[in-house]
Amino acid sequence: MARYFKSDNTATASPRILEALVEANRGPARAYGDDEWTRRLESAFARLFDHEVRVFPVATGTAANSLALATLVPPWGAILAHEGAHVVRDECGAPEFMSGGARLLLLPGAGGKVTPAAVEAALRDNPPTVHTVQPRALTLTQATELGTSYRPAEIVALAALARERGLAVHLDGARLANALAFLGCPPADVTWRAGVDVLSFGATKNGALAAEAVVFFDPARVADFELRRKRAGHLVSKMRYVSAQLLAYVEDGLWLQNAARANALARRLGAAAGPMLRHPVEANEVFLAAGDERIARLRAAGFEFYDWGAEGSGEARLVVGWDQPEADVEALEQALAGCAATGAGRVPAVTSRAGRP
Amino acid sequence: MARYFKSDNTATASPRILEALVEANRGPARAYGDDEWTRRLESAFARLFDHEVRVFPVATGTAANSLALATLVPPWGAILAHEGAHVVRDECGAPEFMSGGARLLLLPGAGGKVTPAAVEAALRDNPPTVHTVQPRALTLTQATELGTSYRPAEIVALAALARERGLAVHLDGARLANALAFLGCPPADVTWRAGVDVLSFGATKNGALAAEAVVFFDPARVADFELRRKRAGHLVSKMRYVSAQLLAYVEDGLWLQNAARANALARRLGAAAGPMLRHPVEANEVFLAAGDERIARLRAAGFEFYDWGAEGSGEARLVVGWDQPEADVEALEQALAGCAATGAGRVPAVTSRAGRP
Amino acid sequence: MARYFKSDNTATASPRILEALVEANRGPARAYGDDEWTRRLESAFARLFDHEVRVFPVATGTAANSLALATLVPPWGAILAHEGAHVVRDECGAPEFMSGGARLLLLPGAGGKVTPAAVEAALRDNPPTVHTVQPRALTLTQATELGTSYRPAEIVALAALARERGLAVHLDGARLANALAFLGCPPADVTWRAGVDVLSFGATKNGALAAEAVVFFDPARVADFELRRKRAGHLVSKMRYVSAQLLAYVEDGLWLQNAARANALARRLGAAAGPMLRHPVEANEVFLAAGDERIARLRAAGFEFYDWGAEGSGEARLVVGWDQPEADVEALEQALAGCAATGAGRVPAVTSRAGRP
Amino acid sequence: MARYFKSDNTATASPRILEALVEANRGPARAYGDDEWTRRLESAFARLFDHEVRVFPVATGTAANSLALATLVPPWGAILAHEGAHVVRDECGAPEFMSGGARLLLLPGAGGKVTPAAVEAALRDNPPTVHTVQPRALTLTQATELGTSYRPAEIVALAALARERGLAVHLDGARLANALAFLGCPPADVTWRAGVDVLSFGATKNGALAAEAVVFFDPARVADFELRRKRAGHLVSKMRYVSAQLLAYVEDGLWLQNAARANALARRLGAAAGPMLRHPVEANEVFLAAGDERIARLRAAGFEFYDWGAEGSGEARLVVGWDQPEADVEALEQALAGCAATGAGRVPAVTSRAGRP
Repeated sequence: MARYFKSDNTATASPRILEALVEANRGPARAYGDDEWTRRLESAFARLFDHEVRVFPVATGTAANSLALATLVPPWGAILAHEGAHVVRDECGAPEFMSGGARLLLLPGAGGKVTPAAVEAALRDNPPTVHTVQPRALTLTQATELGTSYRPAEIVALAALARERGLAVHLDGARLANALAFLGCPPADVTWRAGVDVLSFGATKNGALAAEAVVFFDPARVADFELRRKRAGHLVSKMRYVSAQLLAYVEDGLWLQNAARANALARRLGAAAGPMLRHPVEANEVFLAAGDERIARLRAAGFEFYDWGAEGSGEARLVVGWDQPEADVEALEQALAGCAATGAGRVPAVTSRAGRP
Repeated sequence: MARYFKSDNTATASPRILEALVEANRGPARAYGDDEWTRRLESAFARLFDHEVRVFPVATGTAANSLALATLVPPWGAILAHEGAHVVRDECGAPEFMSGGARLLLLPGAGGKVTPAAVEAALRDNPPTVHTVQPRALTLTQATELGTSYRPAEIVALAALARERGLAVHLDGARLANALAFLGCPPADVTWRAGVDVLSFGATKNGALAAEAVVFFDPARVADFELRRKRAGHLVSKMRYVSAQLLAYVEDGLWLQNAARANALARRLGAAAGPMLRHPVEANEVFLAAGDERIARLRAAGFEFYDWGAEGSGEARLVVGWDQPEADVEALEQALAGCAATGAGRVPAVTSRAGRP
Repeated sequence: MARYFKSDNTATASPRILEALVEANRGPARAYGDDEWTRRLESAFARLFDHEVRVFPVATGTAANSLALATLVPPWGAILAHEGAHVVRDECGAPEFMSGGARLLLLPGAGGKVTPAAVEAALRDNPPTVHTVQPRALTLTQATELGTSYRPAEIVALAALARERGLAVHLDGARLANALAFLGCPPADVTWRAGVDVLSFGATKNGALAAEAVVFFDPARVADFELRRKRAGHLVSKMRYVSAQLLAYVEDGLWLQNAARANALARRLGAAAGPMLRHPVEANEVFLAAGDERIARLRAAGFEFYDWGAEGSGEARLVVGWDQPEADVEALEQALAGCAATGAGRVPAVTSRAGRP
Repeated sequence: MARYFKSDNTATASPRILEALVEANRGPARAYGDDEWTRRLESAFARLFDHEVRVFPVATGTAANSLALATLVPPWGAILAHEGAHVVRDECGAPEFMSGGARLLLLPGAGGKVTPAAVEAALRDNPPTVHTVQPRALTLTQATELGTSYRPAEIVALAALARERGLAVHLDGARLANALAFLGCPPADVTWRAGVDVLSFGATKNGALAAEAVVFFDPARVADFELRRKRAGHLVSKMRYVSAQLLAYVEDGLWLQNAARANALARRLGAAAGPMLRHPVEANEVFLAAGDERIARLRAAGFEFYDWGAEGSGEARLVVGWDQPEADVEALEQALAGCAATGAGRVPAVTSRAGRP
């Protein structure tokens, strides 16, 4: 059987999360979030983030991101985003749809990170007149789509700039746990304390079945979020089953344990990749600039993963799941070490990539 | 503790559906529907409906309805719907949102049912010119929002008229199982064989955690549905967990067993209600015209349910869940019998109702 | 040649308005409203309405109505409107489009007028929950689509009720001049002084080529209107040519003169119609309940007009233009008098109508 | 008084076009395009383009562009456009709005021109999957926003590539007359014969008051355009006054005469600019890389024009109107010659620009 390194979405759910579903399945509970699990969420997340929060469970990361962004910008607004961000590349225009047609302004940036200079340039290039879309939000991704993690100070600087220029700040935390496991800092340090207004909190990739949440650190930002969520078909009726997943995910540190395991395995792969490694491994993803021939060889050896970048870029992405079998990683380590030792063909330095989730 | 008759959304999930989740949780599986459970869905549903189908899992009924309707009508289209339909009253404008602004044309009709005469009148009143919205779809609900069920011949007549007038036909089957358990006919008889083009197939209210599906009987109607679903944040990444619920729901008749139990209990309540019964009990809902005083008495006795109709209408809705404790029903039977025996206050014949899910 | 009584849109432009275009055509002028004509508009309208205003020229009445309404309600909002209103029947869903999918709640009402009771009933029927669209605006039409005019006190009562219930008030004044010419009151009395927040001010039907304006009486309501207008393609670049039309229309009373002439001619037709007259003539429209046979006879005599109501209703609408030839009116007067004298066939009392501009 | 070189939108209307309005103002005419002027449009444009066409008048260029593009792409579609195009920089997101949220993919290109290589790169970077927006149209601008004109062969190559890759081709012809006056070729050579499917035909900037048209060369592409136009408030009721402008504009060559005059004057300015000239003058616009100091000097001398590019870029745009006084041009020629002779400060080579119409 193939060994999957395609996406953390191929992983199973944590047994403890399944157990939580079974426990939540006792007797009736009011629908649409008026249940004890959902009520517990806000206090659990308040403890987690050391700050008052409003938490709204939804079923997918695309829903979390696009509903959060739509709450921050008007239809004629513009959202500054890294050109490789999930909202840009992998959501089929969901931010545009949910917002009623806002525009994404694409920012370059090494390692998948937005820089203050790129923010400044985008704002300079889009001055506000009645003829133009109006920049109103900045979205960051933590960990980034290239497996790197913003340091708290980086987010502080970006958010301060954003705020000064009238932009709200959204953080796509589909892999927030992986970033925190890498950084070792409290969740607050990369969210509200750093200036983030709204967070897409992901659990699905890291051990849940389907559980994400939009977390507002500023109650004023919530605005009409609940009506937006309902109207988009994302108000789950038996919400206890989503909330129970989220509680099990965070209440006893499961989220960081799962992430730490995946990160550690990814680091081993990064080490094995040697000079083929494209970006520092600061989460659970490993990017290779290996050349087409070596990539073909890895694939022939039974490893499943995505090519990265444009056709013929010779790049590949390896994602390690929270439940990745140790044996998969060992096998891939050896294969990578073998590859690295071989003389490679030309490895073009193409940075853009084909859109893939 | 209160005895819940508010909504079938307060019910638990069937143990067999939870077991199916546990079984599906073994080893990696490709994401976004490229998994064995989702692949099995189409053949399972083809057997169920005795017809080739395309099946698309989603997480909520609002998503199923509004995505299905948006696929059938353009932004300037109009959708004929019963004035009490869920898409009209309980989805916060989701059909308008998903379709880019199509209009719902509201049809009256006794017992929650659309009639051919109402369809004809609506079409006569909305002739196609460049100045007007364009009727393009008819949506029916089975079982209806008032707990009645269309007979196959009723759907045949409505769908034939719709087709003749250029309207596609959508069926909101959030309680399809309850209707089928009542009618005792094959699923085909109230869907494709009767002229239905697209079905919202519900499982959540009748034993799933969160599992609905859009079922197309005509592949040509699928069009861009998959892009619409993704863009609205309804393409679930670990789809196996939704598909596994749906498979467990239909493969061994669980859906009809659950519905039959709920229907039978509801019928007992209907019988106990005697002259207070507002509509025939043809699914798992019971509507009372009991007068405000008797309604208050029921509530004081510990029964939770919704008022129905406008304030002071003296009407109430009782919904029986698939897992409703027998004891709840017995207690309510006795309470109803007691009420029915008492002289009631004036019971106004108000038919509209406050919007509630 | 046919004698047109189809619509005031078939009329010519007033010579004085064409002269104003010629006068405005001297030398360069800044684009997009930064010109002397557009600047004069706000003071001219402030004098007209005896109140501070913000005035935004647009090219069509549909644009004025739908942009104004979109500014008042969120995408999940609902707009209360008479079931026969232009925004309901003749704008192809423009309010839904401009607002991002808001819903029109249709109110019945004799003579084309909304009543407080109908507003109350609609609000009772649409209580605010997260599951439902949210009523946020009331739109009235002055003169109504049935040629009647709200008295100031009627608007006062409706607007007070609206305000109390959290609804903004919009007035569709496509035929405001006709209503004012009939009522003889100052423009303020049926607009801001009566509680209207935003007005669609029409000139096209009554002597302009293409000139309408959105008038805000409360600066806070303007919000993002200018961005909405631009984004919808309604920010005219050489705006002086629209503004010059509006100035010529109002600065010397042309608007009321034109309207008064049309109203007077319509009243003559109303008198000639005798018992066939369907609604009081309080503007420039005359509605007949004449029976199909008499309608056919009028048409055969060379008069062009629209049937009204459903097929076979036996109703017709006659509209008198500001420039209607006296001879047309005389000829129609005689024809109507002849009809009225004849025994009619059955004249069914159908009130709805086929959608027509 | 200032001498305006800000925009061709500051120009007057051609006297012949005003005369046409006066001529069209005789007697009644059916509304909404069912008039003799609008009917004549299609034959007049068919002669002009030597091809069967469908012509739809609208009032603004933004309306023409965004309605045309919305007809070509679904809400999840993507439109390839030059990064400096009017639809990108100056329409406040109208394409996103009209299309229901489609995305603009921004292409670089010298002189404001899209290249086949940029199209290929954008398509490579946006491969079609269910997770991504779907490229469906290419829009070109003729003359471009930088005053250059595509040669017929350039459009042929781009359109052939587009067609092969499943993209429809739209041409923004706000300054089509200027391009044709420069190229000296038949209109067909840069439109349908070169592979263009839909054209935004502009007249406003070049002598009309407010008259643009969407021209379809393929009737199948018209689809629901008329409903889109109505719904967006762009179906002008007294359409004869728009159509009459368009007829006067094209029937006797006025459009090319006006454009030729403006082009010739612009060429004189280009020659005077000498080494400061940024792009070849192939229409009625002149771009200077003059340095901030010289730009300030020109402005101090009473010339009104826009800065171009980012703040401090030292660039400026001069636009010559069809009616530009000869004296303005002479004065500016001398001023430019004076500037060119002076040693300039550093002139940074910034290519992007602040958004301006």
